[in-house]
Amino acid sequence: MALSVLILGNGSALPTINSHQSAQIVRQDNHLFLVDCGEGTQVELRRNAVKIQGIQHVFISHLHGDHFFGLVGLVSTMHLLGRTTKLHVHGPRGLKEIVLMQFNDAGSQLSFELEFNIVEKPDQLLFENKKIKISSIPLHHRIPCFGFLFQEKMGLRRMNKDALQQYAIPKHMRRSITEGNDFKESNGNVVPNEEITLPPYAPQSYAYCSDTAYSEKIVEYIKNVGLLYHEATFAEKDKVCAKKTFHSTASSAAKIAQLSNAKKLLIGHVSNRYRNKSLLLEEAKEIFRETEFADEGKEYSCEF
Amino acid sequence: MALSVLILGNGSALPTINSHQSAQIVRQDNHLFLVDCGEGTQVELRRNAVKIQGIQHVFISHLHGDHFFGLVGLVSTMHLLGRTTKLHVHGPRGLKEIVLMQFNDAGSQLSFELEFNIVEKPDQLLFENKKIKISSIPLHHRIPCFGFLFQEKMGLRRMNKDALQQYAIPKHMRRSITEGNDFKESNGNVVPNEEITLPPYAPQSYAYCSDTAYSEKIVEYIKNVGLLYHEATFAEKDKVCAKKTFHSTASSAAKIAQLSNAKKLLIGHVSNRYRNKSLLLEEAKEIFRETEFADEGKEYSCEF
Repeated sequence: MALSVLILGNGSALPTINSHQSAQIVRQDNHLFLVDCGEGTQVELRRNAVKIQGIQHVFISHLHGDHFFGLVGLVSTMHLLGRTTKLHVHGPRGLKEIVLMQFNDAGSQLSFELEFNIVEKPDQLLFENKKIKISSIPLHHRIPCFGFLFQEKMGLRRMNKDALQQYAIPKHMRRSITEGNDFKESNGNVVPNEEITLPPYAPQSYAYCSDTAYSEKIVEYIKNVGLLYHEATFAEKDKVCAKKTFHSTASSAAKIAQLSNAKKLLIGHVSNRYRNKSLLLEEAKEIFRETEFADEGKEYSCEF
Repeated sequence: MALSVLILGNGSALPTINSHQSAQIVRQDNHLFLVDCGEGTQVELRRNAVKIQGIQHVFISHLHGDHFFGLVGLVSTMHLLGRTTKLHVHGPRGLKEIVLMQFNDAGSQLSFELEFNIVEKPDQLLFENKKIKISSIPLHHRIPCFGFLFQEKMGLRRMNKDALQQYAIPKHMRRSITEGNDFKESNGNVVPNEEITLPPYAPQSYAYCSDTAYSEKIVEYIKNVGLLYHEATFAEKDKVCAKKTFHSTASSAAKIAQLSNAKKLLIGHVSNRYRNKSLLLEEAKEIFRETEFADEGKEYSCEF
C-alpha cells in the first residue's frame, strides 16, 4: 500500500502564470482521487502526466471559484475524449445544478454517468473499499466547506520470505496465513503465525483542510494523521485579515498540526501578497518543525 | 485610429499545455474588447500583459465550454481585484444565469455592475461610439451562435501640416476644418478644405466567425471586411466530420473569405487531431492566398 499527494495547484484566489488554483491528486494503489479543481486543473493534470480518465472520484471542498471553476471543463474534456465509466463528484449542495446547467445549455448529453454526492455533515463516509476510507472534515469558512480525510485500512500480514522456503508453504495456503492463521505442517506440527509472517504495513493517512479559519474542532477528526495539508493564506502580522476572511495564518495551521499530532504538515493557499513565502514557512516551523511548503508539481508520500 | 486583434487562445475543444481555448482581444484606440473566453483566459491575459480591468465589453459567441468556461473566473478575478466599473457581457440567452448562479452559491456580492446583453439576432447592434460599431454575425452551429463584426467609422479629415504653417491656421479653427469646412483668412480669402487637409484614415474592420459550419449566409454581413477570422476545425479529407459537427474545413473558411472580398483571412480552432497544421493552411491558401494561421500571443493589425 502507498498513499501519496501530488500538488497540481496551491495558489490562493488569483491564478497567475506560475501559480495555479487549488487541486491535488491523492493516489492510493491504482486509485486516483482529485481533491478540488480550480480553473485550469485539466491542463495541470496533463502537465503532470496524470491519466484524466483514471480519475473516478472528485472531491470539492466548497463553492468558491478557486476550488471548483475547473470542474465543468474537466468533465467536458472527459466527455469529449469518449469516457464511458462513471464519475463520482462529492461536494456541496448546488454544485450539481451549476455543472448540469452548463451541459444542458450546450446541448450536450454526457457520454458517461455523472453522480453527485452531497457533502453536508462531518465525518460523512464518502468512499470506502477494502483498502481505504474517505470521509469529510468540518471546516470553518464563510460558506459551507468540508475537508477530506483519506485513511488506509490495516492491511493483511505479509508472508516472511524465509519462512516460505523453510516450511515449504504451498501457494493456496498463503492467503489464509496473511489473514492471521497458523500453518499446520503435514506431520501435524503447528507453526504459529508470528513465526512465518511480518506485521502489515502501517496504514497511511492524509487530511486536506482548505479553506478554513483556525478551528480546533478539526482536531478530533484528524487526530494522529500522517500528512496534513492545511491552508495558510496569511502571515501572523495579517491575522486580523485571516479572521475576517475565514482563513488561517501559517502559525495557526501549525498549531492544528501540533494538536492533531500529525507527522508532517504541508502548507499552501498562500495569498499573492507575500512575495517571500519563506516567512510563512518559518512562522509555521517555529510551532511545528515538520512543516513544508506544498510545491506545485511535487508528489508527497504519506509514509513516515 | 487602429484596430488590431491579439490571439490569446486559438485551440479547438481540448486545451493542452501549449494550446489555449478560444479568446481574443480586439483593440481599438484605448478600448479593449474580449471576444470569447475559454478556460484559462485570465492567465493568458496576464501572459500577454493585457490590463484585465481595462476590458469593458466581453462578447461570447455560444455556450460550448471552450468559448466561455473562463468567463466566471475572469469576472471573479475582476471582483477580487476591486473593480468598480461596469462590465458588459454580450452573449447567448442562459449565460447570465450560469454566471450569476455561481456567485450566488459563493455568497459573493460583486464589487461592480455586471450587465448582460442577450445576442439573439443577426446584425444586432451591440456597441457603438464615435469611432466604432460592433454588431452580430449569424453563424450556423449546433446551438445558437453568433460571430462579431467590428467596424470603425469614417474619421475626420486630417490637417495637412504644411498648410498649417503656410496659412498660419489658428488652433481653435482646426476642429472645424477637420470636419470638412474651408478656411477663411483674415483678408477674406477662402482656402478650400481639400487644400489644407488630407483624407481621413480608411476605417478598418474585423470579423470573428467561430464556431460555424460553412454558411454563405455569413457573407452579406461581412462583405469587404478587412481582417476575417474564420474557424477551420478540419482538413478537406474530414469534410464529412466538419458537416456532422457544424464546423468548417480550411478550404470552406477560405471560400467565405473569397466571397466576402476580405483583405486577409486568419484561420484557427483547428482540431487537435492534426499534428501538422500547415496542411490546413495550404488548403486554405489554394483558394484564398492571403491566409495566415492565427498564432497565440501574436497581434494582427487590421490595416491594409
